[in-house]
Amino acid sequence: MSDDETLIEELLAGKHRALARVITKIEDRSPGYRDLVSSLHAHTGNAEVIGITGSPGAGKSTLVDKMAATYRERGETVGVIAIDPSSPFTGGAVLGDRIRMASNVGDMDVFFRSMSARGSLGGLSTATTDAVKALDAFGKDKIIVETVGAGQNEIEVVKTADTVAVLVPPGSGDDVQMLKAGILEIADVFVVNKADLDGADRTVMELREMVEMRDNSPMAGHHGADTIDIGGGTDDPDGDADGWEPPIVETVAKSGDGVEEFLGVLADHVEWLKETGERQTQVEKRYAAEIRTLLREDTATLLEAEIEARGGLDQYVQQVLQRETDPYTVADDIVEPLADCVRKRREHEDDYT
Amino acid sequence: MSDDETLIEELLAGKHRALARVITKIEDRSPGYRDLVSSLHAHTGNAEVIGITGSPGAGKSTLVDKMAATYRERGETVGVIAIDPSSPFTGGAVLGDRIRMASNVGDMDVFFRSMSARGSLGGLSTATTDAVKALDAFGKDKIIVETVGAGQNEIEVVKTADTVAVLVPPGSGDDVQMLKAGILEIADVFVVNKADLDGADRTVMELREMVEMRDNSPMAGHHGADTIDIGGGTDDPDGDADGWEPPIVETVAKSGDGVEEFLGVLADHVEWLKETGERQTQVEKRYAAEIRTLLREDTATLLEAEIEARGGLDQYVQQVLQRETDPYTVADDIVEPLADCVRKRREHEDDYT
Repeated sequence: MSDDETLIEELLAGKHRALARVITKIEDRSPGYRDLVSSLHAHTGNAEVIGITGSPGAGKSTLVDKMAATYRERGETVGVIAIDPSSPFTGGAVLGDRIRMASNVGDMDVFFRSMSARGSLGGLSTATTDAVKALDAFGKDKIIVETVGAGQNEIEVVKTADTVAVLVPPGSGDDVQMLKAGILEIADVFVVNKADLDGADRTVMELREMVEMRDNSPMAGHHGADTIDIGGGTDDPDGDADGWEPPIVETVAKSGDGVEEFLGVLADHVEWLKETGERQTQVEKRYAAEIRTLLREDTATLLEAEIEARGGLDQYVQQVLQRETDPYTVADDIVEPLADCVRKRREHEDDYT
Repeated sequence: MSDDETLIEELLAGKHRALARVITKIEDRSPGYRDLVSSLHAHTGNAEVIGITGSPGAGKSTLVDKMAATYRERGETVGVIAIDPSSPFTGGAVLGDRIRMASNVGDMDVFFRSMSARGSLGGLSTATTDAVKALDAFGKDKIIVETVGAGQNEIEVVKTADTVAVLVPPGSGDDVQMLKAGILEIADVFVVNKADLDGADRTVMELREMVEMRDNSPMAGHHGADTIDIGGGTDDPDGDADGWEPPIVETVAKSGDGVEEFLGVLADHVEWLKETGERQTQVEKRYAAEIRTLLREDTATLLEAEIEARGGLDQYVQQVLQRETDPYTVADDIVEPLADCVRKRREHEDDYT
């Protein structure tokens, strides 16, 4: 049995150490990580994945702690992945987070892990998807994907969750701006955290108006330009067009007020997904997006190797600059042999059919 | 001589009708448009390309009108491309814009054209780059690329200009938010338009503070995650790290106040680009990005054809759903034959060397 096979066996047997090593291999894209994730896939599909996003200071990490603790009290196992695209290397902040979880929950069944963008932002999305699979195959009941900020990349990552909760701090002028930046569309639940602060009622009211405006807009259920780019690998996991109106929940994560109610709303959403068949659509779209993303990444790698084999891009740039050639001709020169190759192979295959 | 050869000849001879037809072919991606753009390339490199962006209501179109009129008075020819990713088809607004230009300038040497996202947002960027080439080859001295809004896609398009001017309306609370959203980094010049309104002085002051903060920040000159994604095709055309501090100009586009000064600042920036050698770097980066974008688009097309030839993505999704296979295995199945093709061809080539 190879080392990696042993590792998978240990992960499936519930060893946290093996889980941690698998996720590290995923994050580092160590040799063989693809086969690892391939082997995990057959064991996935049982966890509930919850995405938590919102601007910094909204109280996301405190709420996630309370969620984890509450699930644990109910006897459910929990994995947490914190997405931090701004930190290219794991460091102080990450360690701080781990201690935070350990001290509040004090229980290894809450497995906490930070994911950062090592090498590529596109890769962060793939790495998170793969890490979620590791936690799912391990047998975690609930997987919480928490973003550090609410930037575009973090939104891309978090929206692959089954249910997305958007935290809004009360009374901040940032609310509306933030929600405009693509967050409104991905929210299955809004949480006004720190609901004991002044301005919470107004924020709830503003959110309610926004949700109603969206329901009445011709764009309701359409998520911008998601489906336009054929190579985009984006998906549209929530089915708001078919009757789910995002509830607005008030919590005080520090004291735990409203957390039970929030978890109830999350459960309602999962129930709704299953009853309406949206869950099936969601999963299909997600797998299609996953495949497309991998295809895009793999062909990009192939292309880079081809450019390198031809002596690098710079010579082409210089020729374009000298007006000896032009970008379209260069692209044709590089891609045409590939296209030709594929065509010939297909014709060859036809001979046998 | 083919129809397209005649078209190019007429365009190079200064016929606006031919220019309009070429840009339509570019926008529609009509058969043969690639060859058209290839033929144009040799005749490009003389125009000065100015990008104008900023939030709706900042007065962009009025300022562009005045810029065009002022350049015309100086005897320079002008082309304007208005980017509107939100309108998938040309329609009322576009026609309105055309009439606007015609009535204000009344002169065919200001060639005005709207570009919208037909089919793909990625395509809008390529189509604009190609349309700029058509105007450049035609012999326009100044090409103004004006965005309708200031969304991420419009920013991507406008930042390929030689000089980017960001318009900021005075006294609006949106200013800071908008500038945070990636606009600050692309500005070579800030324009506080409607400078006769209350709050203009404060906006100028706030902008000045922001520019100074950027200069002192360790991120100065670094444009976020631009260079991380190897297939990204992004570029970093301004060289702010090497000593260009974005000036802040006040204009009242309606009356024409400050427009001459603004054009002077644009000329200063071009002069600075040339003197420091930044212009060369900028052009090299731009061509590299252009090639990468085309390569990405072309391989995406190739990939789509391959998926279609295999009966579509859905069967793979169903197999992944049934846990018969997994996304990585599917990606390997599709890309491996392509990689194999490339490998064999390369070995074959080695036989001759």
